[in-house]
Amino acid sequence: MSLIYNRVALIGLGLIASSMAHAMRRDKTVGEITGTARSAETREIAREVGICDQVMDTAVEAVADADLVVLAVPVGAMEAVAREIGPHLKPGATVTDVGSVKRAVIDAVAPHIPDNVHFIPGHPLAGTEHSGPRSGFAELFENRWCILSPEDHTNAEALDRLTRLWKAMGANVNTMEIDHHDLVLAVTSHCPHLIAYTMVGVADDLGRITDSEVINYSAAGFRDFTRIAASDPTMWRDVFMNNKEATLEILGRFTEELFALQRAIRQGDEQHLFDYFTRTRAIRRGIIEAGQDTDAPNFGRGNTR
Amino acid sequence: MSLIYNRVALIGLGLIASSMAHAMRRDKTVGEITGTARSAETREIAREVGICDQVMDTAVEAVADADLVVLAVPVGAMEAVAREIGPHLKPGATVTDVGSVKRAVIDAVAPHIPDNVHFIPGHPLAGTEHSGPRSGFAELFENRWCILSPEDHTNAEALDRLTRLWKAMGANVNTMEIDHHDLVLAVTSHCPHLIAYTMVGVADDLGRITDSEVINYSAAGFRDFTRIAASDPTMWRDVFMNNKEATLEILGRFTEELFALQRAIRQGDEQHLFDYFTRTRAIRRGIIEAGQDTDAPNFGRGNTR
Repeated sequence: MSLIYNRVALIGLGLIASSMAHAMRRDKTVGEITGTARSAETREIAREVGICDQVMDTAVEAVADADLVVLAVPVGAMEAVAREIGPHLKPGATVTDVGSVKRAVIDAVAPHIPDNVHFIPGHPLAGTEHSGPRSGFAELFENRWCILSPEDHTNAEALDRLTRLWKAMGANVNTMEIDHHDLVLAVTSHCPHLIAYTMVGVADDLGRITDSEVINYSAAGFRDFTRIAASDPTMWRDVFMNNKEATLEILGRFTEELFALQRAIRQGDEQHLFDYFTRTRAIRRGIIEAGQDTDAPNFGRGNTR
Repeated sequence: MSLIYNRVALIGLGLIASSMAHAMRRDKTVGEITGTARSAETREIAREVGICDQVMDTAVEAVADADLVVLAVPVGAMEAVAREIGPHLKPGATVTDVGSVKRAVIDAVAPHIPDNVHFIPGHPLAGTEHSGPRSGFAELFENRWCILSPEDHTNAEALDRLTRLWKAMGANVNTMEIDHHDLVLAVTSHCPHLIAYTMVGVADDLGRITDSEVINYSAAGFRDFTRIAASDPTMWRDVFMNNKEATLEILGRFTEELFALQRAIRQGDEQHLFDYFTRTRAIRRGIIEAGQDTDAPNFGRGNTR
């Protein structure tokens, strides 16, 4: 593929940034990749794994002469990073982020971005329960969505270049209004994560059941919850701290519905349960058809021994 | 492998029974497999797919001369089937079931089993979101657990044979006391399913988000919920109707914990969230180590295009 950026700086070297680096190198879409991370240990591992061409000790060094700067730190750390690098950004460069919430990130980052730099908030909807510089792999974004939230006045050429980079990494790219993004993600990601965390916590608390029972018998539904609930604690703490309103609204609706189902169980209202379960099944079909999961009978889990 | 039963009768021909048939045929552990299903359509498909040696129109015909009878119908249908076949069971035969709850199944089935027939309740913890006679595959039980709930007076030879059959199909076999089974499964399976159904229902209800948004952006956590929530509605209605007490107890604990996390979000209690998320992560490690899921960075999902 042809070169899209001469120099890309990755701030933060976790799952997303290291996966981006692997993909950009595979496709030769970027001339040089610099990177940095707050912790010396992470920087050391990144040097060992050889994710970037250069791992710098500071974000200021990393962004020098960069055409694209990717903020790939937990949402709660965005403001400090933006404040630090703001004065050192190359005129004409683009800054993007990969944060799971957009309104809070924009409020934190935008004030620190000079007028001659393009800020295009972004969010790749991809992840695993692993974190850190060793967890990345080039295929993470394949057939996943990346949502960009440009403003009306965002430079069209800058938007086009960033879009091309994400597409080169295998992602489908869409744009979305900021607050709508935060609501959609509260539904499709943030609340499911909180619920999974909660259920795993309940299992762990229940004295009458041993950990090994929970673990051995997880194949019956719980396994998917534990995968979700194993995601990075810092990242998720920051997500909930920074998308409070939408998360609490959706959780309110969730508990309301759950209470209705609990009541149906208690009262023996079979029809209510059957109708509810039939309706939700249809949504699954839509996801299969949209290519966001496999329909294989063993759902790609045949090799788990 | 050597022959374990001369003749096995499968009552109900859904995911579990058809997977058992595929596995028993692969391993030649059974001389002849008969089967039946309540609906003529299912029987027709089963004949087409060739799951069994013979598909009978009635359960009475199917169990004739069978050494093992497997009740693989929804929990709510167990009583009627047991009543029907009871007088026609071969002396010395074993009857087992694959129901997801045990206390209610035993109460429904045991009174109809003659004294000269061994009844050994069972539950293979394996499944996919697919159902029906076409959904089975021989590897479904590989490295999954099958829980048997024999009584103290259960015939040891009969228990040993049934155990050998499940092991031949790839399962790990354990025994568990009836009520403890229902509590463990409420935690590891029944409540996670209800919660997933609920979250998918909430997403579907939210007018401000389109179905295609929910579907496209499901990779961010929601995808696993939709898979769970696509499971067979009849089966799951019956599970909740027949494991009320344990399900409602665990749901009570779940909502209590969820409210505590909601309050932490509202009040900005970062430490509470971080500690909670860190604790749940450890449980996941245990599941990986127990071999009940893969630790591959892409969790076996690389081929979802």
